[in-house]
Amino acid sequence: MKDIVIGIDIGGTNTVYGIADRQGDCLYKNSLSTFAYTVVEDYVRALSEDIIKALHRLPDYKLKGIGIGAPNGNYYTGTVKDAPNLIWKGTVNFTALFNKYFSVPVKLTNDANAAAIGEMIYGAAKAIRDFVIVTLGTGVGSGFVIDGQVLYGYTGFAGELGHTIIEENGRICGCGRKGCLEMYASARGVILTYLDLLKQFNLKQPDVNINTEFIYKEALKGSEAAIKTFDYTGKKLGFALANTVAITSPEAIFLFGGITGAGAFLFEPALKYMNQYMLPVFSGSVKLLPSGVPAANAAVLGAAALAW
Amino acid sequence: MKDIVIGIDIGGTNTVYGIADRQGDCLYKNSLSTFAYTVVEDYVRALSEDIIKALHRLPDYKLKGIGIGAPNGNYYTGTVKDAPNLIWKGTVNFTALFNKYFSVPVKLTNDANAAAIGEMIYGAAKAIRDFVIVTLGTGVGSGFVIDGQVLYGYTGFAGELGHTIIEENGRICGCGRKGCLEMYASARGVILTYLDLLKQFNLKQPDVNINTEFIYKEALKGSEAAIKTFDYTGKKLGFALANTVAITSPEAIFLFGGITGAGAFLFEPALKYMNQYMLPVFSGSVKLLPSGVPAANAAVLGAAALAW
Repeated sequence: MKDIVIGIDIGGTNTVYGIADRQGDCLYKNSLSTFAYTVVEDYVRALSEDIIKALHRLPDYKLKGIGIGAPNGNYYTGTVKDAPNLIWKGTVNFTALFNKYFSVPVKLTNDANAAAIGEMIYGAAKAIRDFVIVTLGTGVGSGFVIDGQVLYGYTGFAGELGHTIIEENGRICGCGRKGCLEMYASARGVILTYLDLLKQFNLKQPDVNINTEFIYKEALKGSEAAIKTFDYTGKKLGFALANTVAITSPEAIFLFGGITGAGAFLFEPALKYMNQYMLPVFSGSVKLLPSGVPAANAAVLGAAALAW
Repeated sequence: MKDIVIGIDIGGTNTVYGIADRQGDCLYKNSLSTFAYTVVEDYVRALSEDIIKALHRLPDYKLKGIGIGAPNGNYYTGTVKDAPNLIWKGTVNFTALFNKYFSVPVKLTNDANAAAIGEMIYGAAKAIRDFVIVTLGTGVGSGFVIDGQVLYGYTGFAGELGHTIIEENGRICGCGRKGCLEMYASARGVILTYLDLLKQFNLKQPDVNINTEFIYKEALKGSEAAIKTFDYTGKKLGFALANTVAITSPEAIFLFGGITGAGAFLFEPALKYMNQYMLPVFSGSVKLLPSGVPAANAAVLGAAALAW
């Protein structure tokens, strides 16, 4: 009999879930539209019924728990409150809703904390007790692990590195303030930087859909604007990471998410500037690494890891 | 029989030690010149002999441990390495040195972490599991407590909030970098701000020794430069604290040290700007408070608290 858990990644558009074993093998994976359900109870019922069907098709197993990664997820309460990307407003108690269909423990946290736990259970942080994972996607999230425990803080919302202000009166952020790291190191931030640099170099904006992959390909071709885009992103990120190290002194910082596909174009400047801004007592103490969780199943495995 | 501990606060000029009970009463206190001993072994012997004499004069007691607060103190190793304000260079293993004279456990950490533990044991954080204490003195130190445990991090040097950079290319700091919080919120930082503002207001520098107490007295008299000095200090501090809250989400932040004597002149702007810079999800979740440890014995009680 095999121990398994279910990992659910709730996104604004789609929800992906997977059935995973202790080794990080994803035995089954499926998705459903989050956006299609205006009533959250209908959404949870549809999702639960789909999961139960999938479980019936499995051979001998023992379901140990369910882990959920969700925007604005609060580990303490099992709830999601006013997530900007979800259509259900107010406070949604997902753990209670799922416990109507499953009698196993249901744990919920935000996406970045789920990624941190994924890194501990399935990734490159198996032997590391103090680390930070920074998720560079549409937004910038972060999960902090202190002495082997995820840092939730008094409110349950600790780890909002993406919303530390790194430039007073900087770019306007979706949170209503200015100069958050998110506006420089997220996909949107990278694109803004690229457009700024094109202007600065008097270059015409190419007539294509500009995303981080496009900018990466341009960098590969030797485009100065593209290469400088990642250098600037790395500088802003390195600055924020050096300040983070001064506070929590991690052994490693993992970068996770689409933008990390830019590889050395991003990691080299990020490391260079992080060390440049770093207080000398921490010099050489911190590794900057890519996440070790396979990208294809990362979100689901992160959520699944929460259940172990 | 009364349980007691010894708290030792090693400063660059003087060392103060005290014998304290569990309630925070200081049964005896004495000091000796740190600077007078060029050989650290001589210093530890002199200090230990003085402590042993003091213990002999006490009625029935049981010595439970020794706690030491020292600049650059590392809790993991019990050592002090290259402290700029101490004359003994290289790595000094204080716990080993004191264990030649005392068979009880000897624990060492830096001053700010000692202050954090003091706040938990003797101060205003007895019922608080997530908090930060910021020591505003000659420098700016900080101690972080996460779920009831002091945050040491991978290196043992976590909690260097004073050396987070809050202004790129800002004031030159003693650490060799620019724009550290310490250069704005320490006594030296406050004085620099005051001198800047005097110039800005075309006012003559008064012919007295300018320290934070003088500036406070000027503020009481209604001096605009003095009042704006604390406002600016509060702004810089509030900015750094808002970023800190985004990372660790504490329930309370305690301010400690001489500058806090400025009371509302400092606390009001610090709170105002902290809330202004704060990510909305944390609004109203954090209290900004003065330390609850009696100032007269704070350093010694902080060190003593480490021993319990």
